[in-house]
Amino acid sequence: MIIMVQENTEKKVTFNIDKNENFSEWFTEICSKAELADIRYDVKGMVVFQSWSVFAMEKMYDFMEKTLQAKGHEPVWFPALIPEKNFKLEEEHVKGFAEQIFWVTESGLEKLEEKLGLRPTSETAFYQMYALWIRSYNDLPFKKYQRANVFRYGTDATRPFLRSREFHWIEAHCAFATQAQAEKQVRQDMQTTIEVLTNIYGIPLIFFKRPQWDKFPGAQDTFAADCFAPSGRVVQQPSTHLLSQNFSKPFNVKYTDKNGKEKNCYTTCYGPAISRIFGSVIATHGDNKGLIFPFEIAPKQVVIVPIMWGKESDEKVIKKANSLYKQLNKKFDCTIDLTDKRMGEKFYYWEMKGVPIRIELGEKELNENKVTLFRRDTGEKIKIDFKLLKKEIQRIGKDISRNLREKANKEFESNIVKVNSFDELKTAIANKKIAKADFCSIELTGEPCSLKIKEATSATVRGLRMDKEEKASGNCVICGKKAELVTYIAKQY
Amino acid sequence: MIIMVQENTEKKVTFNIDKNENFSEWFTEICSKAELADIRYDVKGMVVFQSWSVFAMEKMYDFMEKTLQAKGHEPVWFPALIPEKNFKLEEEHVKGFAEQIFWVTESGLEKLEEKLGLRPTSETAFYQMYALWIRSYNDLPFKKYQRANVFRYGTDATRPFLRSREFHWIEAHCAFATQAQAEKQVRQDMQTTIEVLTNIYGIPLIFFKRPQWDKFPGAQDTFAADCFAPSGRVVQQPSTHLLSQNFSKPFNVKYTDKNGKEKNCYTTCYGPAISRIFGSVIATHGDNKGLIFPFEIAPKQVVIVPIMWGKESDEKVIKKANSLYKQLNKKFDCTIDLTDKRMGEKFYYWEMKGVPIRIELGEKELNENKVTLFRRDTGEKIKIDFKLLKKEIQRIGKDISRNLREKANKEFESNIVKVNSFDELKTAIANKKIAKADFCSIELTGEPCSLKIKEATSATVRGLRMDKEEKASGNCVICGKKAELVTYIAKQY
Repeated sequence: MIIMVQENTEKKVTFNIDKNENFSEWFTEICSKAELADIRYDVKGMVVFQSWSVFAMEKMYDFMEKTLQAKGHEPVWFPALIPEKNFKLEEEHVKGFAEQIFWVTESGLEKLEEKLGLRPTSETAFYQMYALWIRSYNDLPFKKYQRANVFRYGTDATRPFLRSREFHWIEAHCAFATQAQAEKQVRQDMQTTIEVLTNIYGIPLIFFKRPQWDKFPGAQDTFAADCFAPSGRVVQQPSTHLLSQNFSKPFNVKYTDKNGKEKNCYTTCYGPAISRIFGSVIATHGDNKGLIFPFEIAPKQVVIVPIMWGKESDEKVIKKANSLYKQLNKKFDCTIDLTDKRMGEKFYYWEMKGVPIRIELGEKELNENKVTLFRRDTGEKIKIDFKLLKKEIQRIGKDISRNLREKANKEFESNIVKVNSFDELKTAIANKKIAKADFCSIELTGEPCSLKIKEATSATVRGLRMDKEEKASGNCVICGKKAELVTYIAKQY
Repeated sequence: MIIMVQENTEKKVTFNIDKNENFSEWFTEICSKAELADIRYDVKGMVVFQSWSVFAMEKMYDFMEKTLQAKGHEPVWFPALIPEKNFKLEEEHVKGFAEQIFWVTESGLEKLEEKLGLRPTSETAFYQMYALWIRSYNDLPFKKYQRANVFRYGTDATRPFLRSREFHWIEAHCAFATQAQAEKQVRQDMQTTIEVLTNIYGIPLIFFKRPQWDKFPGAQDTFAADCFAPSGRVVQQPSTHLLSQNFSKPFNVKYTDKNGKEKNCYTTCYGPAISRIFGSVIATHGDNKGLIFPFEIAPKQVVIVPIMWGKESDEKVIKKANSLYKQLNKKFDCTIDLTDKRMGEKFYYWEMKGVPIRIELGEKELNENKVTLFRRDTGEKIKIDFKLLKKEIQRIGKDISRNLREKANKEFESNIVKVNSFDELKTAIANKKIAKADFCSIELTGEPCSLKIKEATSATVRGLRMDKEEKASGNCVICGKKAELVTYIAKQY
């Protein structure tokens, strides 16, 4: 096939880094090549999110917001600045964030009377208003969320999407009459995460109840999702926190019950970081040729490439390609490549950019009233009748997302290794795996064992798996005491 | 009609402030009553945007972004923090914004080496990247935009939506090869403003080329839209700025032309502030009963109120109302009021909230297979067959938006008064009108006349009208010299 020959002569334009061998380089390179994020912005640790990623992240926001709204959350927009005194109201919270806050101390040419913190998260902004808004049991449950940029100074090495000093997230803050209702919300948040991240974005994950020494500052309990990157590190994705009355008390968030008695609310917060999740979309689905997007969140879902040979028929081909583009673009996000690049170059470019479906249309196809459809995920090519094209794109689009999801799931599972001793644990981490082990406890009594693991491997104890019950049958692989749980251990971004 | 009697007994729940007599009180009250914005947040000049306004503003963002994307703009997300040195690159710009910037000087527990400004606008963030991204004439035109929160300290009195220290906008930044192309972009921005603000949000406006003494800091020319509020003040809405090479030179934004020669780009910027425009949506369409939303941007487009009489038939009514809700909610943003409030109270509440269409359904309607449909804009009630309901809501929704637009246009026109002397001008401004007058010049030579007007009336010269040619026939109403133009003069928010 002539097209194949063209492709072979164009090797120089290909993106070709072994993702599994050298994930870190692969990730850095694809962020630059596909124009996802530019790290050359002149504030350290802050990047410019470029159009190709923003198009996808806007779709990701849309799915997440629709899901939250369907579950009774309503959107609000809070100020990005929070007075210093608010942070100080919850002791653990201010301790946890003390080193992470950017402080505004001047406005115009004057010094401010009180420092204002750029929100690292907005509990201390929301709750002062909840104290004003919530009056009686009739107002509960009270479920709001905001789409917002948040700022965390941090000292760890930054990396586009996965860890930067400004990121883009959703934060949902809920208040309830009882602890049981708050716990139910936490379960709903975990369900939402799976519905959106796994079922739509195609990212496999496990939800863990985090150990007591690894909670959100101020929370009673933290539940967080771990995804996996081929570097052998997990990426913490959405977490939901059972705050109980830890914030409602200092912030005076109260309601009057049916008997006219004033009580403190029970609150929860949930924080899916869209820009960070996008990092996991890249890491999960990409391959050695570049990005691969699930159909639903692809910046462009279909690229049309007219096949031209410098012949008279080219005009007809372009005309038809343009009319197909107009027609398909009503239903899908399409683009058409009319640049004067060579064919192979075009193919490689759009494969690198991760567009799920490529439509090739040449003289031959035109004569048959067909197009050639190329699937980015499998590399398959099939011929499809003009008439059936819309329907087939719809069907194949869904199939691409399903296939990516299943592939990712298998990959994820295959990276979990059961270990029965400290040595096996060390080997598993060295082999870039997630270790699964009997462990003494995620209460504070287990912290010494977790520290031993961290010293030896840099890996951390992820906590108690929430999506299925796994009973420990033996003893803690570190201290040898009776194990209370099966835990998972991995390095983290 | 029994319903009318009910309404009359419920006067206590009504919102009833004369919008034209006391616009300022009306505006403050409706922001609080309809839960649009809460001014009790503990940073001065910053408000919490509540769900009812955010739902509408999200729709407004959507229309504006789709329109921009259709014209070739692509979304990006820039950091909110800009290093101090960037601001200093364009002399006029830094002068203009010096008193408006919030400065971050500390991060965590440390002092920053360089102050970082919270963006008041992002020219100085975008252009350093444009200098890296734009290489050759092939990259031009280069059209990006971002949806973002921006921060301006300012010293003027703040007011929700119309003037606050953090607001939510879109900023589009474009680069071109020639000045002519940049000028064409400015015309396109003005067209976009009318397509979205006037045709969709229903806000009448006039675009002016601003006087030289009232430009965006750093611009060659500023073109800005003025809307009108019943207080007799204009509200400046989107402005677009011809920056020429004023920024591309200090920021080194260059391209190589076809002959391999390096040249500076010509740039423009355009800034529709969605949260501010929402202020004009309230001010333009509301009436003495509260808000009125154009159908397309209403937080809820339809409210269903089952009419219950404490009879056995109530159950059937609720069942049908619920099924109507489920059916209609697939196509429109609907809500159903099942609270135990009295009927009149429900009616007044949703009228105050500005929901364009109310569907009433009682036993009588049920027996006729009909509903009663109430239009918020005209107060009309009509009966509609269940079967025709979807279609009729669609049609009436459009008609409501058309009606609001036309009413607003008439109102706007009626507030413009031609004046032929300084005295007439003073009277017009005192009567809360926009004065239209022959004026010497919007070049710097005209500034003394503008200052005289400002001293006498607090009103300012708005500039040269862009949407139609109006030739001055006489002399400047202030200095008596030959008038170069017809200008408009008004107080401004």
